[in-house]
Amino acid sequence: MASKQSEAVRAHWAAARAGSQSAVDQEASDHGWAVLTTEPPGVDYLSVEELPAVWVVPHDAASDRVLLCLHGGGFISGSMYSHRKMFAHLAKAAGVRALVVDYRLAPAHTHPAPVDDTTAAYQWLLDQGFAATRIAITGDSVGGALAITTQLRARERGLPLPAAAMPFSPAVDFEATGTSYDTNRDRDAFFHRDLVRGLAGMFLGPDGDPRDPLVNPLYGDLTGFGPIYIQVGGDEVLLDDARQLAAAAEKAGVEVRLDVFPDMQHTFQMAAGRAPEADDAIERMAAWVRPHLGLPDLEPTDLGATDLGLTH
Amino acid sequence: MASKQSEAVRAHWAAARAGSQSAVDQEASDHGWAVLTTEPPGVDYLSVEELPAVWVVPHDAASDRVLLCLHGGGFISGSMYSHRKMFAHLAKAAGVRALVVDYRLAPAHTHPAPVDDTTAAYQWLLDQGFAATRIAITGDSVGGALAITTQLRARERGLPLPAAAMPFSPAVDFEATGTSYDTNRDRDAFFHRDLVRGLAGMFLGPDGDPRDPLVNPLYGDLTGFGPIYIQVGGDEVLLDDARQLAAAAEKAGVEVRLDVFPDMQHTFQMAAGRAPEADDAIERMAAWVRPHLGLPDLEPTDLGATDLGLTH
Repeated sequence: MASKQSEAVRAHWAAARAGSQSAVDQEASDHGWAVLTTEPPGVDYLSVEELPAVWVVPHDAASDRVLLCLHGGGFISGSMYSHRKMFAHLAKAAGVRALVVDYRLAPAHTHPAPVDDTTAAYQWLLDQGFAATRIAITGDSVGGALAITTQLRARERGLPLPAAAMPFSPAVDFEATGTSYDTNRDRDAFFHRDLVRGLAGMFLGPDGDPRDPLVNPLYGDLTGFGPIYIQVGGDEVLLDDARQLAAAAEKAGVEVRLDVFPDMQHTFQMAAGRAPEADDAIERMAAWVRPHLGLPDLEPTDLGATDLGLTH
Repeated sequence: MASKQSEAVRAHWAAARAGSQSAVDQEASDHGWAVLTTEPPGVDYLSVEELPAVWVVPHDAASDRVLLCLHGGGFISGSMYSHRKMFAHLAKAAGVRALVVDYRLAPAHTHPAPVDDTTAAYQWLLDQGFAATRIAITGDSVGGALAITTQLRARERGLPLPAAAMPFSPAVDFEATGTSYDTNRDRDAFFHRDLVRGLAGMFLGPDGDPRDPLVNPLYGDLTGFGPIYIQVGGDEVLLDDARQLAAAAEKAGVEVRLDVFPDMQHTFQMAAGRAPEADDAIERMAAWVRPHLGLPDLEPTDLGATDLGLTH
């Protein structure tokens, strides 16, 4: 059963669905999302001049390791500000810096604007002197897709691939073919097929192809990618997106881990600092990524002392 | 007439009043307040370890000039996070740093906890090497009272007084005696006598005295204070608090300026980045404070090109 604090995530999505017939008010929607997350203490935020991004610098974090953080929001909403605190919780837990970036949004900008912008941000990190082996890419929802497609784009451009990726609640299948759209139809508080296809239409524009590998990385070649850790809520209609991404990575010979958090909604990690499930998920990502960035394992905590009944 | 954007401030207070019969949900209330303000670009936020505060550092700001920023919230709510963006707009416009501080809140903590904490923050700034002549104190609502009472407390402790103060929408008269409670009764979307007296009761505790000069600086001696610039909304029931504070300062021989912004609600400056009245008010504070901190005047802008019909 979801914690009381995680119920706030469900309430957020239910409210979003109730309002989804009207014009999307991006700012109000972003703020309703951001309110789920507490402010983690001991973190600095530095505005970047060269690109629309904010450096998240936890005190005592390693300065040469970085998470490139790509926010969700269906390619029409979300921002570095809506996700600043959540990614700060993750960076703080992992003991590394984070670069939280904006990218151009639909309907004003269509594919490939987002993946071009996130690839430019990755290139910028390399230009700043960060080694690819010291960079991990993470993102929620469509940011989870971008965590993979950015690597495909980077490879096209001859850039070295990052050390690891942590997509969570990834949205990759913009044709909405997953059977979880049916099996979780009454559990997911927000998403459904028409909504996802509508978002895809806005993001792709009239001539876009939902099977473009830079849109849906299930059609891409993930051979040679670094390890991938995927998290997803058990109540999401996007559950199959996560499963299919895990299967595609495994088929390509990539080291992959998938954790399914029962009773959890889309991007339940946004309740970081409040909900035990979100904090557990963040801790798991932090513990997982550290060795991939060449950092020592975290000290054992009571992580896992609570049996969340994860499935894989 | 208030701009459409400033109407959001009125709507915020009306919603707060509608909910004011139930238990105060500080976090939700703070967030609803903070959503009024945009994120100003080009500003860094540094978490302070030694006290509950955040450094607001606009790029290219003078590093030896600082605004000590004291948030409002009736001594029961508000935080450095709810007011971070609004004070960042002000610091950026003034070209200086800001230290936005938390202080202990009622009902857990009663007077003099807030003024002791804000005085400790002022002392900390002096200890960091900031000259008193390079510090201005600003604050909204009860933070406006603290902008004055902190100076009374500092003087008790033998500290030098800061260069200047900018209280806006100051709440100082916790007996709620002002005639503006009657004349603006139907204009103010939130405050009324019973509410202010209730807040005072929580803040003062059973034995508190609303005429303690460290509570209501109208009963204090402002002689020798630096210049004071007060802003207030013309629709506030707290309009007389501002007028009385201006009169008390003038009587004490203090240089004082009062601007009354017609049709504006309590702390309308929280709509900074959105509402023209808020941006105008912030610009006026910034332009006013710079020479008091030994900085050159701002370049003339189109400030004042729009006749807001200010009264004084």
